Amino acid sequence: MPLRENRQVRLVARPRGIPQAEHFSLVTEPVAAVGKGEILIQNRYLSVDPAQRGWANDEGNYSAPVPLNTPMRALAVGEILESNAPEFRAGEFVYGWFGWQTHCVAAPDAVLRRVQPSALPLSANLSLLGINGLTAYLAFHGLGDPKPGEHVLVSTAAGSVGSFVGQLAHIAGCRAVGLTGSAEKAALAQARYGYQAMINYRDSTDLPAVIREACPEGNDIFFDNTGGAIADAAIRTMRLHGRIIQCGTAANASWTPVPTGPRAEREILTRRLRWSGFIIFDHIAEFEAAATRLTEFALDGKIVHDEEILPGLEHAPGAIAQLYRGDNHGKLIVAVD
Amino acid sequence: MPLRENRQVRLVARPRGIPQAEHFSLVTEPVAAVGKGEILIQNRYLSVDPAQRGWANDEGNYSAPVPLNTPMRALAVGEILESNAPEFRAGEFVYGWFGWQTHCVAAPDAVLRRVQPSALPLSANLSLLGINGLTAYLAFHGLGDPKPGEHVLVSTAAGSVGSFVGQLAHIAGCRAVGLTGSAEKAALAQARYGYQAMINYRDSTDLPAVIREACPEGNDIFFDNTGGAIADAAIRTMRLHGRIIQCGTAANASWTPVPTGPRAEREILTRRLRWSGFIIFDHIAEFEAAATRLTEFALDGKIVHDEEILPGLEHAPGAIAQLYRGDNHGKLIVAVD
Repeated sequence: MPLRENRQVRLVARPRGIPQAEHFSLVTEPVAAVGKGEILIQNRYLSVDPAQRGWANDEGNYSAPVPLNTPMRALAVGEILESNAPEFRAGEFVYGWFGWQTHCVAAPDAVLRRVQPSALPLSANLSLLGINGLTAYLAFHGLGDPKPGEHVLVSTAAGSVGSFVGQLAHIAGCRAVGLTGSAEKAALAQARYGYQAMINYRDSTDLPAVIREACPEGNDIFFDNTGGAIADAAIRTMRLHGRIIQCGTAANASWTPVPTGPRAEREILTRRLRWSGFIIFDHIAEFEAAATRLTEFALDGKIVHDEEILPGLEHAPGAIAQLYRGDNHGKLIVAVD
Repeated sequence: MPLRENRQVRLVARPRGIPQAEHFSLVTEPVAAVGKGEILIQNRYLSVDPAQRGWANDEGNYSAPVPLNTPMRALAVGEILESNAPEFRAGEFVYGWFGWQTHCVAAPDAVLRRVQPSALPLSANLSLLGINGLTAYLAFHGLGDPKPGEHVLVSTAAGSVGSFVGQLAHIAGCRAVGLTGSAEKAALAQARYGYQAMINYRDSTDLPAVIREACPEGNDIFFDNTGGAIADAAIRTMRLHGRIIQCGTAANASWTPVPTGPRAEREILTRRLRWSGFIIFDHIAEFEAAATRLTEFALDGKIVHDEEILPGLEHAPGAIAQLYRGDNHGKLIVAVD
């Protein structure tokens, strides 16, 4: 076997808040030997996700922090080059925990899903069929319980999850209104992502009034990725028995100390709301069925997926910060050259 | 038919915050004629409930405020003296919206439930079998989804609802810890209401630490009637997939302006909590089945119900303020003399 090089993006300093390029280092080492029961994957595309911020720092998250001087934890899609595991064979494509690196030697449980490379472009397995689309589908349908004619409000509506929530709401016969941070993204989301109206929250001095105006009948579902002032205003538009889906808390740069906000208990009580947290990795058993449904929607032309693909591993270190600046267009993905 | 006198406690001034005795007036008028399809009820016991605060003021609640110079809205249990409604007959006992008055002429839809006067003492229909016991049963089981061995934390644990939640948790095989505001109530709740441990929140300078100490394994269910500092600390003890039941917001004297508190979004997200509001009047169709079950528990000696019965209608005007001071022992009820 020829000696293969593995280029890695390692976490080398512990960030406070949002990881920046300087917290990472590009390192090349030989590809490790493929042990008994292991597989070797050549990564084709690497995912950039908001959750990586939590994985990189040690604020006490829902998963252990990435150890320093190891490849940054990341989802990726790639091809199996060698397999010493009976359930996989060389040539198969897989999606899973393969990290920010060109090659990954892993146990089979690092694989989340086998990928059909012919159904949709391979990168779609990190967007529509990755945790973004799967989160949108499983959270919106599993916790939102949407019914035709209902009203849906979505924060970060042009983002990697929100862009699918609007389309899924439209497919479900709901009226979706979205929030985003620029006129350009608002136009994009209204044109492409199923939203009947969009709000540019940076364009408003009285956000509660603007949201009420855009949602004159209130909202049955609020799909939130923010947990800040936008959410505070949105929650006050909920209709009786409304459902709030907490999928992220991007509005808060830090939780130490815990930020304060207007209490929601009276809204929860008097409107009989149901406010639920959603983390996609609780739902791995549902991935295959959701991906099948989302592939059908895409092949039927009912759902689009926009991706911004950064060309080359050297773009990974700055990618999380780029994501939090919000200046990407579609799901941010790094192509492995 | 002899002319009957109806003594009423009318709301005569619009309170801000908690209604006091001076907001009510005792008025006597002749009992109204019983029209076609109506029934005349002689009230035996009148309920005093925290929700009456909301009904008396006009803060924008989940029900319209009580009009001034009309009998205070209240639940009551009484005997039908006359019926012009085919579904009721004189001599039946009923529970429903009969107000703070000795007599009530009402349409049949004012009745929430027919009462079996022989099963338990008549006043129990305002406590164990009234909205307090029904709330405890339907909220705890309907939203809490308790499983044997789970950990349950209850605020206002010695109160009219909490005293039943502890017992229902015990019956369900859960470990219940309660919060209350005096050593006397803590002892009572631990002795009688199914709690394995009690916390007197007035006795602590570091409530979060005391709650963590009393709940070393965290909590699967938090049954909250407060929505203030106690709840903030309690929410931070929730286990993965925990359920928060919001049944009241008694810690907040006013919602104008909206009080602030530490944000819970990160707790909701990372622990995948489900936080739901509960209002008993959404569940009228379930009353009969719940009352049957609660009666069985009481007859089997598995559940106790404590009541503080004020002797005479003249005690009603000050009763809501007494409830909010927390110096009642058991469900506060006014006996109609």
